[in-house]
Amino acid sequence: MARIFVLNGPNLNLLGTREPGIYGTLTLTDVEARLRARAGDRAEIVFRQSNHEGELVTWIQEAGQEGAGVILNAGAYTHTSVALRDAISGAKADTIEVHLSNTHAREPFRHRSYISAVCRGVIAGFGPLSYELALEALLAQVP
Amino acid sequence: MARIFVLNGPNLNLLGTREPGIYGTLTLTDVEARLRARAGDRAEIVFRQSNHEGELVTWIQEAGQEGAGVILNAGAYTHTSVALRDAISGAKADTIEVHLSNTHAREPFRHRSYISAVCRGVIAGFGPLSYELALEALLAQVP
Amino acid sequence: MARIFVLNGPNLNLLGTREPGIYGTLTLTDVEARLRARAGDRAEIVFRQSNHEGELVTWIQEAGQEGAGVILNAGAYTHTSVALRDAISGAKADTIEVHLSNTHAREPFRHRSYISAVCRGVIAGFGPLSYELALEALLAQVP
Amino acid sequence: MARIFVLNGPNLNLLGTREPGIYGTLTLTDVEARLRARAGDRAEIVFRQSNHEGELVTWIQEAGQEGAGVILNAGAYTHTSVALRDAISGAKADTIEVHLSNTHAREPFRHRSYISAVCRGVIAGFGPLSYELALEALLAQVP
Amino acid sequence: MARIFVLNGPNLNLLGTREPGIYGTLTLTDVEARLRARAGDRAEIVFRQSNHEGELVTWIQEAGQEGAGVILNAGAYTHTSVALRDAISGAKADTIEVHLSNTHAREPFRHRSYISAVCRGVIAGFGPLSYELALEALLAQVP
Amino acid sequence: MARIFVLNGPNLNLLGTREPGIYGTLTLTDVEARLRARAGDRAEIVFRQSNHEGELVTWIQEAGQEGAGVILNAGAYTHTSVALRDAISGAKADTIEVHLSNTHAREPFRHRSYISAVCRGVIAGFGPLSYELALEALLAQVP
Amino acid sequence: MARIFVLNGPNLNLLGTREPGIYGTLTLTDVEARLRARAGDRAEIVFRQSNHEGELVTWIQEAGQEGAGVILNAGAYTHTSVALRDAISGAKADTIEVHLSNTHAREPFRHRSYISAVCRGVIAGFGPLSYELALEALLAQVP
Amino acid sequence: MARIFVLNGPNLNLLGTREPGIYGTLTLTDVEARLRARAGDRAEIVFRQSNHEGELVTWIQEAGQEGAGVILNAGAYTHTSVALRDAISGAKADTIEVHLSNTHAREPFRHRSYISAVCRGVIAGFGPLSYELALEALLAQVP
Amino acid sequence: MARIFVLNGPNLNLLGTREPGIYGTLTLTDVEARLRARAGDRAEIVFRQSNHEGELVTWIQEAGQEGAGVILNAGAYTHTSVALRDAISGAKADTIEVHLSNTHAREPFRHRSYISAVCRGVIAGFGPLSYELALEALLAQVP
Amino acid sequence: MARIFVLNGPNLNLLGTREPGIYGTLTLTDVEARLRARAGDRAEIVFRQSNHEGELVTWIQEAGQEGAGVILNAGAYTHTSVALRDAISGAKADTIEVHLSNTHAREPFRHRSYISAVCRGVIAGFGPLSYELALEALLAQVP
Amino acid sequence: MARIFVLNGPNLNLLGTREPGIYGTLTLTDVEARLRARAGDRAEIVFRQSNHEGELVTWIQEAGQEGAGVILNAGAYTHTSVALRDAISGAKADTIEVHLSNTHAREPFRHRSYISAVCRGVIAGFGPLSYELALEALLAQVP
Amino acid sequence: MARIFVLNGPNLNLLGTREPGIYGTLTLTDVEARLRARAGDRAEIVFRQSNHEGELVTWIQEAGQEGAGVILNAGAYTHTSVALRDAISGAKADTIEVHLSNTHAREPFRHRSYISAVCRGVIAGFGPLSYELALEALLAQVP
Repeated sequence: MARIFVLNGPNLNLLGTREPGIYGTLTLTDVEARLRARAGDRAEIVFRQSNHEGELVTWIQEAGQEGAGVILNAGAYTHTSVALRDAISGAKADTIEVHLSNTHAREPFRHRSYISAVCRGVIAGFGPLSYELALEALLAQVP
Repeated sequence: MARIFVLNGPNLNLLGTREPGIYGTLTLTDVEARLRARAGDRAEIVFRQSNHEGELVTWIQEAGQEGAGVILNAGAYTHTSVALRDAISGAKADTIEVHLSNTHAREPFRHRSYISAVCRGVIAGFGPLSYELALEALLAQVP
Repeated sequence: MARIFVLNGPNLNLLGTREPGIYGTLTLTDVEARLRARAGDRAEIVFRQSNHEGELVTWIQEAGQEGAGVILNAGAYTHTSVALRDAISGAKADTIEVHLSNTHAREPFRHRSYISAVCRGVIAGFGPLSYELALEALLAQVP
Repeated sequence: MARIFVLNGPNLNLLGTREPGIYGTLTLTDVEARLRARAGDRAEIVFRQSNHEGELVTWIQEAGQEGAGVILNAGAYTHTSVALRDAISGAKADTIEVHLSNTHAREPFRHRSYISAVCRGVIAGFGPLSYELALEALLAQVP
Repeated sequence: MARIFVLNGPNLNLLGTREPGIYGTLTLTDVEARLRARAGDRAEIVFRQSNHEGELVTWIQEAGQEGAGVILNAGAYTHTSVALRDAISGAKADTIEVHLSNTHAREPFRHRSYISAVCRGVIAGFGPLSYELALEALLAQVP
Repeated sequence: MARIFVLNGPNLNLLGTREPGIYGTLTLTDVEARLRARAGDRAEIVFRQSNHEGELVTWIQEAGQEGAGVILNAGAYTHTSVALRDAISGAKADTIEVHLSNTHAREPFRHRSYISAVCRGVIAGFGPLSYELALEALLAQVP
Repeated sequence: MARIFVLNGPNLNLLGTREPGIYGTLTLTDVEARLRARAGDRAEIVFRQSNHEGELVTWIQEAGQEGAGVILNAGAYTHTSVALRDAISGAKADTIEVHLSNTHAREPFRHRSYISAVCRGVIAGFGPLSYELALEALLAQVP
Repeated sequence: MARIFVLNGPNLNLLGTREPGIYGTLTLTDVEARLRARAGDRAEIVFRQSNHEGELVTWIQEAGQEGAGVILNAGAYTHTSVALRDAISGAKADTIEVHLSNTHAREPFRHRSYISAVCRGVIAGFGPLSYELALEALLAQVP
Repeated sequence: MARIFVLNGPNLNLLGTREPGIYGTLTLTDVEARLRARAGDRAEIVFRQSNHEGELVTWIQEAGQEGAGVILNAGAYTHTSVALRDAISGAKADTIEVHLSNTHAREPFRHRSYISAVCRGVIAGFGPLSYELALEALLAQVP
Repeated sequence: MARIFVLNGPNLNLLGTREPGIYGTLTLTDVEARLRARAGDRAEIVFRQSNHEGELVTWIQEAGQEGAGVILNAGAYTHTSVALRDAISGAKADTIEVHLSNTHAREPFRHRSYISAVCRGVIAGFGPLSYELALEALLAQVP
Repeated sequence: MARIFVLNGPNLNLLGTREPGIYGTLTLTDVEARLRARAGDRAEIVFRQSNHEGELVTWIQEAGQEGAGVILNAGAYTHTSVALRDAISGAKADTIEVHLSNTHAREPFRHRSYISAVCRGVIAGFGPLSYELALEALLAQVP
Repeated sequence: MARIFVLNGPNLNLLGTREPGIYGTLTLTDVEARLRARAGDRAEIVFRQSNHEGELVTWIQEAGQEGAGVILNAGAYTHTSVALRDAISGAKADTIEVHLSNTHAREPFRHRSYISAVCRGVIAGFGPLSYELALEALLAQVP
């Protein structure tokens, strides 16, 4: 059974209460539940959130060492963190960048991603479904 | 049954023969077949390719007038065409931008997309699977 | 009697249905009718629309060869087309750039026009009246 | 009867003598006369010129308080004055930006206009006719 | 008793009527009254407004020669005037830059201030209270 | 009684010993004491410092959930943290950005603030008094 | 016998009549004749012109599929077309970029070429001779 | 006898008291006296200062109409005024730009001059001597 | 005996396993051992690694308070952290920036260092030897 | 018989041994021999190389004084030397810029040429053949 | 008697023959003669020209060691040479930058001077008179 | 015994007398002596200095041909010379870039190095010790 880390960056713990006009009313717990349901017994989901860039770096290293795949919603660190980029390119994990909102339809500083270039692919703009599509993409690689 | 336009931009007609190191050996006909199989009777697929920016504009207008969804791989026009952007924002079609390769891992001029901001979301980097994930995203909206 | 080409670029065929909040509810046919009425027997109006950059280039060449004036709403190609610029500067036609909306009050990439520098003048922001003012400007030059 | 302020910025008092190769030989008094003739009894014309940015700001405020329309040739202040922009957006006056020459065919620093985004429209490149077209545009709005 | 110049730049004379959604409905006279009330006999307030950059320069020089402090809301000239900057750095006056609105939440050209670097400090975003806080800051320096 | 979080970013724990030529000799404990004295029984002050971006994010979320106001001296993170910006705009807290020094008179990279645009206002350059003025601004809103 | 596509972009059909001060008075038919004469029986020349970007893309694909060499004067599309670049790098054709005029001595936007990086070489500034030199370069490779 | 306008821009009225470390202790009256002494009966000196951009524009126009030469120390307006540039290029006056300090050794925004390109020459960095050298340059042209 | 903090930033804990093509196969423990061997009894080495920007800030403060020298390989934070810069300039520690790889031969965003300007010097490109050279440099200052 | 200077810039003396993967294994002596053979008695070839920018300037002046044509491979000075540009535009020599490699397919700083704008044309990417094509171009001008 | 080095950069040896429309018909020998005449016995003139950047560096060092003043027309090296800048700031010589033409009225790359910031002043645009005015400026300092 | 070229660029011949506040009072001869002492019989030192870019290019070529290592302090040419870069990447020499001062703490134009990317590593900021550390780095490679 595949093992997949789903890592969530800063402020995603407030999902559902924070700016619902942009992010909807589902909470991160709801996202986790939907994702676990979709994964079923196809994958073991490790689901975490942190406001700390360093902690996200550590978790990506951990996933790499376990040979797990990574679904990464790095939130604001997407746009500012070279450390995350280095963690991804250094880890052996297969990583997919996801976003709830369409970051390209927002402020210009959200158009730059330090991590896209070292991820396998990017899925953005579909709300919690972004995570599920990423799950399908990761599982599609599994023989 | 949903009706979905799958529109492919310049040079995608050569898929499978052009730079297989980047794009793989599947042809566009293969992509179409996989997508039709996945859609089954959930959606009617209109699958087209053109090297002409103006023709893509016209097709997006057509999709909008039919109320169809759009999966758009605009290829190189992604990075240069304001006309496509205007067609998308003018049409009532629900449009998803897809790319075979991870455009953010390539030349800098491929990092700018004129169309991302007016699409619902973006899926890039998964080869033909990018199309299938977009299909799932479009169908997930259908009640 | 003066002969004047009125050339319309991409997506203008949808005028009246596309983003009426920005462009109003008049259709391109309405614009043509108003313009013909205003011209009366002062000018013969050749009124065309195309989504193809190359076709607009060809029409400008045609106008130049006939010695006709040109009212050009190049739409999105205004901001991306060096080919149109070259067609205008190469043609002998007296060309006026028009826009329905005030392009300078919109996204930054609409502030750059490749064609303004080779047109006689620019009229933007007056809806269909922009065309009529351009007509008056062209006719005012006619002895 | 409509009341329209026609406001002219720095150096326009020298029109006709200053760089006639660019601006022609008509004087500002000639422009005023032509405009009054064209307005006839359709509009009362208030015609002024100042080399002072602050005075132009004050006049735009005055027009706003009277509910008059404004035809503004801000000359060089077009490219440098945020104060004029604020006056226009603060005033309730309907303002049209005009230029004698085609500013986009001149030096790059003349391509940026601080005021275009807060005017209803722009007319540039037609010499004194630019003012007359703006007059027609303003009057066309009057019921 | 301290002597403090409160200098207001272009368009601030229309405060209360101009864009009340942004600036509120208090007039500049109201601001002055509140400030005089707050100052009480702790400071003599010299309260002025001008639409002229040159006049503001002169008043800052005057304050400097009197050894007065300055509360400066330079309005639009904040973003375009090197002359004001030179006046402030040349005068011996202790100057505080104030803004009614949070200029950093507005258009990009309002993010650049020529004068911040030569003022003692900046207070922005609190409406008329910005002035009062600046007053407190100036008085806190007085032994 | 109002509840106000006073949050201090990286290196502010060294206040008083670090670069006293720029920041003065008051310690952060002194700042806290002055602020508590000024608040008196008008507000309950929660005073914290962290070198961790993630911890500051968490505290802003906490303030938002308690409905407390925030006085934020984000130090160096002002210029680099999109995560803080998102925390502020996501929290319901009323936030004021403060700085001890006049950041605009320092290196160019300190002129950009990611957080100003989502704070109510900015107060910079008055040393510890910056905090006290922010306190007054927050309390002035309380009915 | 080598087979060589000579492809001409927008506005080149007007060669000889359009801006003869820059481009000379030879027509495109003259260029073709000179080139055929020079080729003699060393190469079969396929000589085409189009104002359509998409058509040029298709022709380059065609050349690639036939294993023919390409002499490409992309005209204005040189500076704006990523689609042509992709066509060239995707085709197996050996492509040489030519220009009649010295594009580097003209407007700055003509200094950027999207296609130079994927062509074997560039020849610019020699009028019709540019084509002939490119022919020699292509033939010099033929064993 | 030649007639020469010596025009001084904002803050130059404070010369000698303002930042003497940069500008020295000579007052503008001293500069005038030295210049008149140097001119002797070779030239009639019209010596003026204004803090108003508009007034400087007017004076340059006046000089142009009298056929006088101009020595212009535009101070801060050097870096921000297109209106002065237009006045100089519109006037027939022979104009020399002078500066007391070496503006290129100061802040970056002082490195851009809007007026240099339309003046005959530039003399900067020699204190009051800059004016005298400019006088010599103007007189050297007089037959 | 000198006391020297050797501080390592994000992802350096994976040295030896992460991208060995770039960083070699030595682990961070190996680097530490070599450095301790080289230091011998000339210096006491405090050797640490953290993925957290805030923790690195704290350690630099600690070194500064102990009067220790610092060898800092800030990894990815080199390019994004103003907080580290402030910690270094605020601490009294003598700090040397080191890098295993030649950062200037890598991606453009690695060419900018926020910390170089406040370190005594930079040593980059020599693998673990970079640390040893920095040690020599620190010790060379010790009397 | 035409006289043609063939001038080679820095590092070209190492041709054949330096980076043969890019530049091939022909030496500069080989290039000279091929060129003399091609010229035959149609032109006298003056063939030189220097690592000194100043020496290349002097030789271009010399060619200009003799009325000779110039084939210039300025190597790295292409991208940094305004002095060469001035020499070319000052000399009366007809100059063609050549490059062995396709400079536009290399680092961005090699995309800027200071000299292209003042040469008659550019030939790049054909190895030693670049020189021969330039020779043909120069001779084609000779009556 | 003062000793003054007059140093001339690349291409100035061709003065009088090179682009006389810009630089006039006086030769460098004429400039030298005029300057010596003007200096009379007030200064000993060392007059030199070189096309080599390195030689100009050496001469500036020499002037510095002799305590001589320098009049430097660095020609094209003005815009590209940091080495000259370092020589000037390292030498103790009092240096004045001169130009024959008004460099600010020419191409944009001539607007940047690496040396202005380390010279005492700049004189540009007066032809050979530029040198003479610089001589006066140097001598005016001599007691 | 290793053979090492130590090459010094423009103005370094004045070391010790030029700006001792920045560069210290050691002369280049002192640096050489210290380096020879440190090398002892481990390496033969070839120590040279030139103000000429072209001569430095030649010496790097020479080192490459001898298989010697290079310690290069290119001085000002670091920031402007593509020719040096090409010489380094073309030579087979192992090259280390050194600087006496910390160039990143100086003017912005000194932050760009054309040569870092083609050197093995960079050592900057340690005065003459920079050379000695580079020597150790070169020798550490020798088996």
